[in-house]
Amino acid sequence: MKNFSFYSPTMIKFGEGSITKLNTILMGKYKRVLLHYGRGSIKKNGVYDGTIDELKKAGVKFFELGGVKPNPRLSLVREGIKIVKDNSIDLVLAVGGGSVIDSAKAIALGAATEKDIWDYFLGKERVKDALPVGVILTIPATGSEASMGTVITNEENSLKLSVNHDVLRPVFAIMDPTYTLSLPENQTFAGVMDILSHVFERYFTNTPNVDFTDYLCEGTIKSVIKNAYSLKKESQDYSARAEIMLAGTFAHNGLMGLGRQDDWASHIIAHQLSALYDTTHGVSLAIIFPAWMKYVYKDNLEIFNKFALNVFNISDAGKPKERVALEGIEKFQSFLMKIGLPTTLREGNIPRDEFFRMAEMATINGPIGALKVLNREDIINIYKLAE
Amino acid sequence: MKNFSFYSPTMIKFGEGSITKLNTILMGKYKRVLLHYGRGSIKKNGVYDGTIDELKKAGVKFFELGGVKPNPRLSLVREGIKIVKDNSIDLVLAVGGGSVIDSAKAIALGAATEKDIWDYFLGKERVKDALPVGVILTIPATGSEASMGTVITNEENSLKLSVNHDVLRPVFAIMDPTYTLSLPENQTFAGVMDILSHVFERYFTNTPNVDFTDYLCEGTIKSVIKNAYSLKKESQDYSARAEIMLAGTFAHNGLMGLGRQDDWASHIIAHQLSALYDTTHGVSLAIIFPAWMKYVYKDNLEIFNKFALNVFNISDAGKPKERVALEGIEKFQSFLMKIGLPTTLREGNIPRDEFFRMAEMATINGPIGALKVLNREDIINIYKLAE
Repeated sequence: MKNFSFYSPTMIKFGEGSITKLNTILMGKYKRVLLHYGRGSIKKNGVYDGTIDELKKAGVKFFELGGVKPNPRLSLVREGIKIVKDNSIDLVLAVGGGSVIDSAKAIALGAATEKDIWDYFLGKERVKDALPVGVILTIPATGSEASMGTVITNEENSLKLSVNHDVLRPVFAIMDPTYTLSLPENQTFAGVMDILSHVFERYFTNTPNVDFTDYLCEGTIKSVIKNAYSLKKESQDYSARAEIMLAGTFAHNGLMGLGRQDDWASHIIAHQLSALYDTTHGVSLAIIFPAWMKYVYKDNLEIFNKFALNVFNISDAGKPKERVALEGIEKFQSFLMKIGLPTTLREGNIPRDEFFRMAEMATINGPIGALKVLNREDIINIYKLAE
Repeated sequence: MKNFSFYSPTMIKFGEGSITKLNTILMGKYKRVLLHYGRGSIKKNGVYDGTIDELKKAGVKFFELGGVKPNPRLSLVREGIKIVKDNSIDLVLAVGGGSVIDSAKAIALGAATEKDIWDYFLGKERVKDALPVGVILTIPATGSEASMGTVITNEENSLKLSVNHDVLRPVFAIMDPTYTLSLPENQTFAGVMDILSHVFERYFTNTPNVDFTDYLCEGTIKSVIKNAYSLKKESQDYSARAEIMLAGTFAHNGLMGLGRQDDWASHIIAHQLSALYDTTHGVSLAIIFPAWMKYVYKDNLEIFNKFALNVFNISDAGKPKERVALEGIEKFQSFLMKIGLPTTLREGNIPRDEFFRMAEMATINGPIGALKVLNREDIINIYKLAE
């Protein structure tokens, strides 16, 4: 086990009706709130009205900024920072999924400084402080509701960059699984893959002697897969929605990676697809992860054997380790197919003629990954495996 | 899954040498510190000197109060409260195991109020605030380093009572597994049982549809058992010490019980042994838990079957569920025997003539437990099963 630091202070209020806790959380603590949201779905499903009721009960003055799009934009972040500063706002309340939360975090960061917000993403400024961010979660996927990260796209130059710091961890997250009952199937299962990917990036490691987190990762993967199958059968299954929402938070708050070396190569490789072809993040991951697994598994047969045995109960009787590992990967890929996600570029209707360019972009800061360090050629091979 | 609230803000610095983070944590944030510890073991193993070095580096003024005993006493807590108030101390730093941490929490609670500290334990006063508590952990067992609870004994009337509130969660915990390498075998394995018991009280539940936490609990139990066996072979195994230390924190910070109904009957039943015969807490639990399991398993065969199958890999082929459940319990009891813990009153050299009195004390506030609600007769039967 490696040495580590862990800090996850987000207060979670979980379950049907937990929005009614909001006024108590706010009262006496926050006076002026920026309500930040996306493109209006919360106005259709009642989440907006429920939130406004609570803000009124709490007696806070609130301001609104909607319009967050997937891959949240710097221009809207700048707009938010101005509203917060002009109105002495003391809490940014994100109502939505990962994009809204990431946008809220960037606003909270920019509002606590006189420096230009983009300089933090460029690494020119060091993060010291941020306003508190609260979350009302409507889409389980990114784990941003308890994570330390935010990813913002600068639409002027198409740069998509991240900032990671403990001050960006939300102070509270209200998580009501009933909000997710109306999510369409493609969004539900792209979210499932996003959640699984956060565990995978931590689980597939060369760090030895990490039993406790091995088990936590395997348990989380099993729980997500089991409940994804349940949702494939019955989208209105509250229990399954709740399990996936809960797992999504702990998949990315740092718990699963305690004492382990993370990887994150697959995220960078998948990200190039989203950047070039606007593929949904979870879909890009569903296409890249099986290919990455097939490319790297021989470099750590032990962990891929564990994956096959402990997650998929594959029998290893009389089989060479390579065979067992491959069966685990196949089983995972077949799970993705069963929940309707594409697992190849072809299935995703994604062009297959820019592998070199994407591999170059993926390695712009040098080789990537940790379980196996990948250079440009490796990444091209992975794209080929994903064809 | 039940609705729940979860808040675990303790910042963890984990690994060999993590004491060197202390001065940075303190600097600029705390000015006057009460160093609270036990009966001097930290002066022998270097932990005390390491801590003092860091306090000096941080430039804080510090005061000392040692002498905490197992089952920490109210009189010492009162002494601590006076020192804190007289010297405007702003952080109580516990260096030790669960007793020291619990004592520090009670001091931190009492120092933030003009009310009498014991009234909080009697439930006459409602907790609102407490001073921050920091922890340098030397014994993995109680999980108090990240939990919301403190248990204090009033030596005037032998009442042992607890307070539970989120303000009692330590703000930081420094956890260096090398500190635990010198723990004697009996203390190590009593700690192991304490850790397992915190998972059991959450795992054995009637709450349906809690896959995610089922898996977390099972994984934690498996990890602790595996690494306890490693320590039985080789007490200087850093990795095994680290795994158990880490599991101990998450076993009792609330994570394992998210959305589940807790039980806690076994703790109350075991506590009477400790109260009457001064048995080590972990030893009392090792004696009571197998008996409790054998008494209640028929009331929820499902969860005891899961325990047998998922934790101990027992084959259920062609066996009735009762048989499978019992085999799991036997396997667990045999684990305790292998690590040298007594699993019966006889083996623990504990008198067996006060069952009625102990059962009466256990039910002083009415029936206990949740998986099966237990009355006085039930508890006498459990003591008999533990004979």
